Amino acid sequence: MSDQVVEFIFYLVPVGSLLALFYALYLYFFVSKQEPGTEKMQEISNYVREGAKAYLSRQYKGVGVFFAVMFVILTAISFMDYLPKVVPLAFLTGGLFSALAGFFGMMTATKANARTAWAASKSLNSGLQVAFKSGAVMGLVVVGLGLLDLSIWFLILKYVLNRPIAEITATMLNFGMGASSMALFARVGGGIFTKAADVGADLVGKVEAGIPEDDPRNPAVIADNVGDNVGDVAGMGADLYESYVGSIVATSALAVAAGLGLRGVMVPMIMAVVGVLASIIGTWFVRSEEKAEQKVLLRALRKGTYISAVIVAVVSYPLIGMVLGWEHIGVFGAVLAGLLAGVIIGALTEYYTSANYKPTKEVAETALTGPATVIIGGLSVGMLSTFLPVLVVTIAILISYFVAGRGDFSMGLFGIAISAVGMLSTLGITLATDAYGPVADNAGGIAEMAGLGKEVRNRTDALDSLGNTTAATGKGFAIGSAALTALALIASFTEKVQFESLELINKLTEADGVVPQWLEEASKLNNFLDLTNPQVLVGLLVGAMLPFLFCAMTMKAVGRAAQSIVVEVRRQFKEIAGLMEGKAKADYASCVDICTKSAQKEMMLPALSAIAAPVIVGLLVGVKGVAGLLAGATASGFVLAVMMANAGGSWDNAKKYIEEGNHGGKGSDAHKAAVVGDTVGDPFKDTSGPSLNILIKLVSMVSVVFATFILQNALFK
Amino acid sequence: MSDQVVEFIFYLVPVGSLLALFYALYLYFFVSKQEPGTEKMQEISNYVREGAKAYLSRQYKGVGVFFAVMFVILTAISFMDYLPKVVPLAFLTGGLFSALAGFFGMMTATKANARTAWAASKSLNSGLQVAFKSGAVMGLVVVGLGLLDLSIWFLILKYVLNRPIAEITATMLNFGMGASSMALFARVGGGIFTKAADVGADLVGKVEAGIPEDDPRNPAVIADNVGDNVGDVAGMGADLYESYVGSIVATSALAVAAGLGLRGVMVPMIMAVVGVLASIIGTWFVRSEEKAEQKVLLRALRKGTYISAVIVAVVSYPLIGMVLGWEHIGVFGAVLAGLLAGVIIGALTEYYTSANYKPTKEVAETALTGPATVIIGGLSVGMLSTFLPVLVVTIAILISYFVAGRGDFSMGLFGIAISAVGMLSTLGITLATDAYGPVADNAGGIAEMAGLGKEVRNRTDALDSLGNTTAATGKGFAIGSAALTALALIASFTEKVQFESLELINKLTEADGVVPQWLEEASKLNNFLDLTNPQVLVGLLVGAMLPFLFCAMTMKAVGRAAQSIVVEVRRQFKEIAGLMEGKAKADYASCVDICTKSAQKEMMLPALSAIAAPVIVGLLVGVKGVAGLLAGATASGFVLAVMMANAGGSWDNAKKYIEEGNHGGKGSDAHKAAVVGDTVGDPFKDTSGPSLNILIKLVSMVSVVFATFILQNALFK
Repeated sequence: MSDQVVEFIFYLVPVGSLLALFYALYLYFFVSKQEPGTEKMQEISNYVREGAKAYLSRQYKGVGVFFAVMFVILTAISFMDYLPKVVPLAFLTGGLFSALAGFFGMMTATKANARTAWAASKSLNSGLQVAFKSGAVMGLVVVGLGLLDLSIWFLILKYVLNRPIAEITATMLNFGMGASSMALFARVGGGIFTKAADVGADLVGKVEAGIPEDDPRNPAVIADNVGDNVGDVAGMGADLYESYVGSIVATSALAVAAGLGLRGVMVPMIMAVVGVLASIIGTWFVRSEEKAEQKVLLRALRKGTYISAVIVAVVSYPLIGMVLGWEHIGVFGAVLAGLLAGVIIGALTEYYTSANYKPTKEVAETALTGPATVIIGGLSVGMLSTFLPVLVVTIAILISYFVAGRGDFSMGLFGIAISAVGMLSTLGITLATDAYGPVADNAGGIAEMAGLGKEVRNRTDALDSLGNTTAATGKGFAIGSAALTALALIASFTEKVQFESLELINKLTEADGVVPQWLEEASKLNNFLDLTNPQVLVGLLVGAMLPFLFCAMTMKAVGRAAQSIVVEVRRQFKEIAGLMEGKAKADYASCVDICTKSAQKEMMLPALSAIAAPVIVGLLVGVKGVAGLLAGATASGFVLAVMMANAGGSWDNAKKYIEEGNHGGKGSDAHKAAVVGDTVGDPFKDTSGPSLNILIKLVSMVSVVFATFILQNALFK
Repeated sequence: MSDQVVEFIFYLVPVGSLLALFYALYLYFFVSKQEPGTEKMQEISNYVREGAKAYLSRQYKGVGVFFAVMFVILTAISFMDYLPKVVPLAFLTGGLFSALAGFFGMMTATKANARTAWAASKSLNSGLQVAFKSGAVMGLVVVGLGLLDLSIWFLILKYVLNRPIAEITATMLNFGMGASSMALFARVGGGIFTKAADVGADLVGKVEAGIPEDDPRNPAVIADNVGDNVGDVAGMGADLYESYVGSIVATSALAVAAGLGLRGVMVPMIMAVVGVLASIIGTWFVRSEEKAEQKVLLRALRKGTYISAVIVAVVSYPLIGMVLGWEHIGVFGAVLAGLLAGVIIGALTEYYTSANYKPTKEVAETALTGPATVIIGGLSVGMLSTFLPVLVVTIAILISYFVAGRGDFSMGLFGIAISAVGMLSTLGITLATDAYGPVADNAGGIAEMAGLGKEVRNRTDALDSLGNTTAATGKGFAIGSAALTALALIASFTEKVQFESLELINKLTEADGVVPQWLEEASKLNNFLDLTNPQVLVGLLVGAMLPFLFCAMTMKAVGRAAQSIVVEVRRQFKEIAGLMEGKAKADYASCVDICTKSAQKEMMLPALSAIAAPVIVGLLVGVKGVAGLLAGATASGFVLAVMMANAGGSWDNAKKYIEEGNHGGKGSDAHKAAVVGDTVGDPFKDTSGPSLNILIKLVSMVSVVFATFILQNALFK
């Protein structure tokens, strides 16, 4: 392939982006034109929609302040010459695009819920189509906007500002921080929101007032439904948006460091485009027959994902050979390793959390001896379940490094990074199967509240139950990709430190200045990130502690936020005359607003500590300390996230397994014990655990952005 | 100080060792000659003693097999020239001395329990004296035997085998593995034993048969009391024996690496001797008045510990100046940092776990809303409580490194190692206050069972309650010292890798062979332990996962072992005629034997995985991978251990706080919820958490022993 063709090939990226966005628009219209169901259904759906809007408007206010402050800080740093001048602006666009992805995804999901329920009243396949296609809107919007952001800045940097390729990728590497910050707010805020509403609604509605679950008289019940969208749609979307963009920019930067130049930069970009096409094609294969069991439904969704993965694999092979040259075809091995690792981690998550398999069956059994044994059982499963995912990720790392690198260190690092891109390339469809879950969940709730027939309920139940499985595999996938992306970012961080050190040395040498020892050391890097170095060790210990601290803060936050919902629901029951009799409308928006407010308030401390940690550690113990911090946080955060997600998932399904009539069924002592496990699992799997994905990526991103600043201003260098 | 004096000064080490042992003997006689109380008391005490013996005899059988197998493996490796020939023998003595320390400590403790109860019937101070002095036997035996083992081998290596100092310290570094392995068995086995007996006794005795706690008719009740000694006396002793010996040999090896020669080697040894003296003097200050509150009692114990610490600090200053030369007086700063860090971590543990402070008060409050919130609350406190201890350890590391090293890397590492020695120097007395706890606990049980008066009960209660506090601080101290020791061992590991690589290169060069690249790299070390290196990364991820896997295995083990006790107790109730009427004696020994058997059986898998992990990782991804593994395991293991110990302690005390009449008191719903927390906390704080201390030291020790073997035989080098 000639250089001109390679240069030209870049234009496929904006084309792919627009393709994804237009196809998303097409799917959105498909969802919109479905019948919205009975008046009652529309009313409930509108409440959820209204609530979601209320959440978003408040969220953007809070986040807006944060972005304004960070913009000023970044601008100040860029004027001190520690950052390229365009970074503060790009920080804003990253946040904006991530927010837009969340907005579109959530608007579609809240539109699709009643429509899914209504379609399910016709046939199972119709219900599946509506729910899945609304999920696909989210998936395609995420990848479409991600590629759009990258395209715009690449074109500006290359053709407007005429920067050389090394500077372009170094600059673009800084962009991820906007998306990371937005993702943190979406994930942590959404996670706190959804669990606060869930727990709060249950405590007052079910326990105190004695009205059934999903009763529209409960002012918090809408907030609960909003929460599903807020946490599992918008939060998950922002999380993966960030992994997606992060892995691509990190890989591009490492491609340049490996001496692959523009050709290397093109590889992750083009793979993303192939992924868009593969995802769209994959969606065509998701369909089911009428008399379908859960297994058949699951197979329908899986078929779409697997076909996309195969397409990416098949197309990548010649593509990599032609763009990079056939001597670098080993890079294809890294892509394959990433793709496979993603699939395997998803399957492992299902194994540990589904009641079809031994681990969760055993957790259900421990419920027979009371809540304490359920907790110990679930925690054991969670801890045990860290073994294989770690093994899979480490094997993927080794394969990627050695197959792509074949002895060359920089090429090996590029290999690790590209395996993350491989894993995430089919994000359009994997995210679709994931965002499908809360839509089906909401549809079930609406069918129940609106009093649709038993057959419809059975169908929405089948769809919902499937959603739980895809949610679990989605979580595994999100964690795995976060770990690989974080590792790629660590590598980019060290490359950046080395690059900046050499630049500084050049400047000093030109000015006949003396090069200090720390700078000399930093420029040699390998001489530098030593595990016996106390600065690295300090960073490592603090890094390993950070996820624990973060989890503690988010779990406490859920508790406090739930408490404020309890107060509000009690107030409405008391003050709104006729509410209990169904004559007056509950003030859903106020409940949603309180949820949002306390979510926003409660998430500030954890979010700010995540952002501040690498900067503080860096300013104290230098870039060596930051490197240690990143390694420690990624390793312990990855393991802890897997543990919490799987323990939570296992408790949830153990409870459902008992509710199906096992070990005494609903209302038995075993069931009560299992409910305790489920309640503990809620913040585990929906708040703290998933937030760790962002934490490990965000600390890397912040470190990259502040690298130069830290390099020159640290107390111990 | 002349070189001759320095050489002569070594003889203070065996003298100090004998001093400790003879003083322990003196204290043992003091305890023995106390009146053993009523016949009933003696009977119960004898049961416990009998049970402890049964445990030890079984434990030594199981461990004997393990040591025999390891001896063969190590001998084979030493004949392949990967280890000095004396190491397999020293491995045995390390295990033997550690076992002896456990044996003497436990025998004294089981002798002191009834005597403490009887002494308490005279006055509070008498009770305190007996319990504390029996604890001091354990403390002094541990340090005495540790120093004896070191002295014997030092003298053999230096004067019988005439080895140079570098080889002596390198060889002695391998010795720790015997003590580590023994410690692992003692801690994990003891931890499983004690919790299996506890849970098993409660489930059948209290719940099924309806007999009160501590009723002698319950065959498992003695096993429960034995368990306190097995876990908290023998287990803790073996744990700290290992830290003690490990920190001294690691520091000696690093002293030689830092070019300090014999003088450097003498420093940790002599500091240990000073510590022995200081501990003995400290014990003289532990006394209380009759009308003492818990605070006064605590002050009495603290006084002893603090006086010892001050003595060590004051004496170390001139000692370091004279032995090392005043230009190295910075080393004193490292010692001080270690001493202080130990004290502060102990105090922090108390803050997080005592019901006198906010965190545990809040956990107690969460009991009002049920078991789920108690679990979330306790886990949050545990996770939150990792922040400050990590901060303290990292600050100690930085101070030690920079103050002792002043820019010199090897001296800095020596500084980190010596801070661990500083922290552990007063082990004689800190371990005494720790081993005091289970003695007081047993004494309370015996007073209850033997029907002693209310005033006596109040006194033993006061002593017992104090024991809970010292146990908590002891746990914090054990974790903190384990982390520092592990870090010193990591440094020793890398030094050893470098040393061996250089030796190999020399041999190859002499034989005109070609030096392979991996060996060249290994000999440069700094070029080598790079956090972006995939082998290091893989090790790091596996290392971070290892503590989680280990915890999962030990928690599951407790569950299964408790189940086998339930079966045995039921059998005895059914088969032994007249047992329930008090006419027949329960078969305590069989219960103890079953506890021991299942503890030994259940601990094999976790123990073997801990030993195998570094070897397997090493043989696959080389010494780079091992370095990553050690860093990952130490960082995540330290944080997880703090989390589990503090969450468990907090749940325990929250329950006690409610039992004192708060939030509804005993029998209320809040109390029931708190009991769930306490039950979950049991394996957290007494099995899995403390076992992690050994895990992180053992993996380092195994890595040190197998370093040369791994270096030459790894798949990826």
